[in-house]
Amino acid sequence: MDSCVVPLRQGGLSLVQTTDFFYPLVDDPYMQGKIACANVLSDLYAMGVKTCDNMLMLLGVSNKMSDKERDTVVPLIIRGFKDLAEEAGTMVQGGQTVLNPWVTIGGVATTVCPPNEFIEPGNAVVGDVLVLTKPLGTQVAVNAHQWLDEPERWNRIRLVVSEEDVEMSYQVSMFLMSKLNRTAAKLMHKYNAHGATDITGFGLLGHAKNLVQHQKNEVSFTIHNLPVIAKMAAVAKACGNMFQLLQGYSAETSGGLLICLPREQAASFCKDIESEDGLQSWIIGIVEKGQRKARIIDKPRVIEVTPKIE
Amino acid sequence: MDSCVVPLRQGGLSLVQTTDFFYPLVDDPYMQGKIACANVLSDLYAMGVKTCDNMLMLLGVSNKMSDKERDTVVPLIIRGFKDLAEEAGTMVQGGQTVLNPWVTIGGVATTVCPPNEFIEPGNAVVGDVLVLTKPLGTQVAVNAHQWLDEPERWNRIRLVVSEEDVEMSYQVSMFLMSKLNRTAAKLMHKYNAHGATDITGFGLLGHAKNLVQHQKNEVSFTIHNLPVIAKMAAVAKACGNMFQLLQGYSAETSGGLLICLPREQAASFCKDIESEDGLQSWIIGIVEKGQRKARIIDKPRVIEVTPKIE
Repeated sequence: MDSCVVPLRQGGLSLVQTTDFFYPLVDDPYMQGKIACANVLSDLYAMGVKTCDNMLMLLGVSNKMSDKERDTVVPLIIRGFKDLAEEAGTMVQGGQTVLNPWVTIGGVATTVCPPNEFIEPGNAVVGDVLVLTKPLGTQVAVNAHQWLDEPERWNRIRLVVSEEDVEMSYQVSMFLMSKLNRTAAKLMHKYNAHGATDITGFGLLGHAKNLVQHQKNEVSFTIHNLPVIAKMAAVAKACGNMFQLLQGYSAETSGGLLICLPREQAASFCKDIESEDGLQSWIIGIVEKGQRKARIIDKPRVIEVTPKIE
Repeated sequence: MDSCVVPLRQGGLSLVQTTDFFYPLVDDPYMQGKIACANVLSDLYAMGVKTCDNMLMLLGVSNKMSDKERDTVVPLIIRGFKDLAEEAGTMVQGGQTVLNPWVTIGGVATTVCPPNEFIEPGNAVVGDVLVLTKPLGTQVAVNAHQWLDEPERWNRIRLVVSEEDVEMSYQVSMFLMSKLNRTAAKLMHKYNAHGATDITGFGLLGHAKNLVQHQKNEVSFTIHNLPVIAKMAAVAKACGNMFQLLQGYSAETSGGLLICLPREQAASFCKDIESEDGLQSWIIGIVEKGQRKARIIDKPRVIEVTPKIE
């Protein structure tokens, strides 16, 4: 699943570890550093691990940058990464930087903990509900923002969205992608979560399918609600099948956690997250008896979301 | 130094962790996988850590490869990496693969251990000797091998080396680079090593300078002997200042450990390694009183080495 769990030689402890690296997608290097850090840590948080013991940073610096570009951009990326690591209560000690044609940013997050500090993802039971902790649509928003400078593509979506909408959804996306899923990881313990995954490159349904396949019980996931960053559902529709946002396959970066929670605890979970982080979560579906399939119903309810940016 | 050491919340344990990734340098993907694995682990071995608890593999697959090339090359790299991890008594659990203009191969090695399982690198004392566990010259050999197909460059060295010599030194280099420094790590404990580093991109003297700067005592390193893969000193000389091999700056990949050992124990250390691994080590210098400088004497003794390939 999202992190590997390796039993250690030291009595009862496990190593929980994950790595992730990717290419820049926003034009603000400091925010890009934060997003990369949040994205790596999210794999630990999906396991209910709330304390990361160490991070390594992996950086590929483009050989096509001028010295001046490099000296401007790289320290900002590093600062963003380190600042968010600090916010997460951990530190970046170690890593490597190489020259590469493309800029790459990523890291490794590691925790050593006893079994009660992480939550195996495979214990969903019939009657659980599915909670999502961030709205969908970051990829659509980032692309729409790029298209402001590409008239041909912009013409495809200008009837459904204004420049201001796009600028706003881009800011909202950067805010969301750089937001830690740490509070959710902590509350997974309080509210007896039965498993979780984080939503990234395969989209909501892609990751839901992966999670359901790892279930011990014969269950299936049915998703009824799709919280989406405001206007991005319309943009996705205007682009035809390109994003597959409402089909559940639009990639997210540093997306929310999808969590299986006992039904009677889910509302409290969402309320707690909102009061701690100021961010909404949503009950988006249910766990039913089934053959480990995940699906979105035919006409899901699209919830338009405009998070307040701090 | 070579690995980061992070004290853990669990009584007395530390996380020892390192990451490394680079670009292919040999044309055999299976061997390249082994070399990448040996290179990552070497940072742990330099800390006297002989047990790695987990490895992650980091792979960048070139977007310029055809599907067929990709399907042939990538599984071989992965197999090489995993095979050597197994030889090292560890496992590859986790990692990530991305598309990239260049092929990149690397990994993360992690150990959780009590303080007596690793050796801080900064405790050299006057009277210690410096031991090197692999000969120098891998970069020279790899380059010379490439030049077999580049007549202009080959002409620069053909007077000092035959095609057979170059082919042999290339095979020797692949063998050496894919050799684990694990026995050395184990014997560092038996023979009370006072610190070590592994020789990679900055060359022997580059890494010696780094190690000496981390010493607690006021010491300096003086290097008298340079064990070099047979003929590679002559090749390096024929290339002028290009490699800086005899100046100590020729890059190595997955090079040997440079270890500070009590003088009276160094010979036994070398003998033990040879009987366990079938590989020679050399006393190449001494630790003297000084201001944390490292140098190679004016006319070092060059030891021509032809290891027996298993």
